[in-house]
Amino acid sequence: MDIPDLHDAALAARLQHKLDRKTKPAGSLGRIEALALQLGLVLGCETPRLREPQVLVCAGDHGLAARGVSAYPSDVTWQMVENFLSGGAAVSVLARQHGLALTVVDCGVRHDFAPRAGLLARKIAPGTGDSSQGPAMTAAQCAQAIANGRDVVARLPGNVMLLGEMGIGNTSAASLLLARLTGHDLLDCVGAGTGLDADGIARKRALLGEVLQRHADAKEPLQALAAFGGFEIATLVGAVLQAARERRVIVVDGFISSAAVLVARALEPHVTQRCVFSHRSDECGHGLMLRHLGPDRSTPARALLDLGLRLGEGSGAVLAWPLLQSACAILEQMASFESAGVSDKGAR
Amino acid sequence: MDIPDLHDAALAARLQHKLDRKTKPAGSLGRIEALALQLGLVLGCETPRLREPQVLVCAGDHGLAARGVSAYPSDVTWQMVENFLSGGAAVSVLARQHGLALTVVDCGVRHDFAPRAGLLARKIAPGTGDSSQGPAMTAAQCAQAIANGRDVVARLPGNVMLLGEMGIGNTSAASLLLARLTGHDLLDCVGAGTGLDADGIARKRALLGEVLQRHADAKEPLQALAAFGGFEIATLVGAVLQAARERRVIVVDGFISSAAVLVARALEPHVTQRCVFSHRSDECGHGLMLRHLGPDRSTPARALLDLGLRLGEGSGAVLAWPLLQSACAILEQMASFESAGVSDKGAR
Repeated sequence: MDIPDLHDAALAARLQHKLDRKTKPAGSLGRIEALALQLGLVLGCETPRLREPQVLVCAGDHGLAARGVSAYPSDVTWQMVENFLSGGAAVSVLARQHGLALTVVDCGVRHDFAPRAGLLARKIAPGTGDSSQGPAMTAAQCAQAIANGRDVVARLPGNVMLLGEMGIGNTSAASLLLARLTGHDLLDCVGAGTGLDADGIARKRALLGEVLQRHADAKEPLQALAAFGGFEIATLVGAVLQAARERRVIVVDGFISSAAVLVARALEPHVTQRCVFSHRSDECGHGLMLRHLGPDRSTPARALLDLGLRLGEGSGAVLAWPLLQSACAILEQMASFESAGVSDKGAR
Repeated sequence: MDIPDLHDAALAARLQHKLDRKTKPAGSLGRIEALALQLGLVLGCETPRLREPQVLVCAGDHGLAARGVSAYPSDVTWQMVENFLSGGAAVSVLARQHGLALTVVDCGVRHDFAPRAGLLARKIAPGTGDSSQGPAMTAAQCAQAIANGRDVVARLPGNVMLLGEMGIGNTSAASLLLARLTGHDLLDCVGAGTGLDADGIARKRALLGEVLQRHADAKEPLQALAAFGGFEIATLVGAVLQAARERRVIVVDGFISSAAVLVARALEPHVTQRCVFSHRSDECGHGLMLRHLGPDRSTPARALLDLGLRLGEGSGAVLAWPLLQSACAILEQMASFESAGVSDKGAR
């Protein structure tokens, strides 16, 4: 373990005092104040500033998709990568709105992309193996994908990473990781993904039950990750580990990005102290997952937004982004009772 | 009644079709899609654009505050107006973050302000009367405050109003309006305001019970508004009515701003079709109030954010503002399955 506990009682006290002296009833900005405190602790100062935020979208295909676990064909993965790059996808539109840099990583898409700006080629293979027939990837592929994620983050500037993903079939991998790493009943971990109907969900649950059973021995985090996939999730695990090591703020999107944090947290317990969970996804299982992703093992993670999102791509992370900016602006720019000459509580 | 029903089935169908053809699973942007649909209906087009958004903060003092219903002294009202104008308050910081114009209206603050940019003098009187002794204002004062709110909005540019308020003691007025206009038990309508302790809340509840009883005859919306106050709430009622008549988008802040919408809605049932409820306040009673503020009488209003805010000033409205911009950007800029060459569901 090389990611330290961020615990710093003195800094936390200074941040809390600063927030409490702002011209507002103590605590009246609710979770914006908790967010300001967290950002101060992650960035290690009383006036945290978010610099050069980077949206990173990791994409990969899943062998299991051929078994009909998604409402969409696998080709949508590469088509959406093209859409990200040409600026027409939701995350592209939202990143543009907020002036955020967007990088797409081909972690293992079943398609040959022409090189271009904004696309990083870190392809392990053209899609994972079918996890209903064997492991999604080898241990070596898994290690390489994690190393790729570390390397990608290490080369990007700034002190904030907003993490998203694309991969037809990847709610299946995330559900399997959730079930295996937390021990929850698989039925509670599997949902509609991109929009399966009730019959489709029932088939997905039955198939994933077989996959979970087939890989009953894959109990350790990295074994489970290799067994269930995918390359984009493994790359995100590396991205989370590197961003945490570098003490960047990590803005986590939805169910699949959170699954990467779940694996990273199993390896490095303190990574979640650096994570801002942007939203609670409508995907069945995400609420359950958040219960395991709090800043310490006894505290559930609370997401900032709860808007019924279930798109992925990093779209929820980018929607929540201005709240992080607001939290920093409150710390830096709001007047105190003293500086503004406002009477405090009890001064009647 | 002069505010028409926005119902336009043909436009709603076109907006929904446009959203459904965007490159994402149908409905996967959750309430951002519902918001986009609403903004299209309010602004009457398939590509709504938000122009020159205006934050309007209405301030006034309350005679009842002398009875100890707030944790803060009345002087905080004028001190906070100064803080809004000098840029140090939460709403000032947040409005600056998003480049929003901010106008403060002195609707009846117990203080003489020097004239200056950003402050509109629409003072009815230096604070309302003490509603535990008599009506907070006369019928004529109430009508004048509403007229002031209409006039202020009519003179401001743009097609979006973000409404906030300041007034020590005004959660009491809002709680009384909620109880009277909806018939809910007063106990469910009264909370901690700026931060009363349990004893303080108990005293506030007992006092407000007397006030409610004293004005048992004030059953009509405008009678209740005059009985309980305040000037800033009445001015906001006028602002809501004028903004709705002009078909502007109305971004509602928390408990007190919502109370103004509650009164306006009692006068003009269709105003809430134009309202975006920015957040669910932590103030006891706001959830109850939202149940009465949906787009029609059978649908509760759903707020965008739920962050434990209880500050007022318009701070929640401004925190939610980028979500409105995102909804419009999604409609205007996202590619369709056809334009991006992405396979739709079922195309496997």
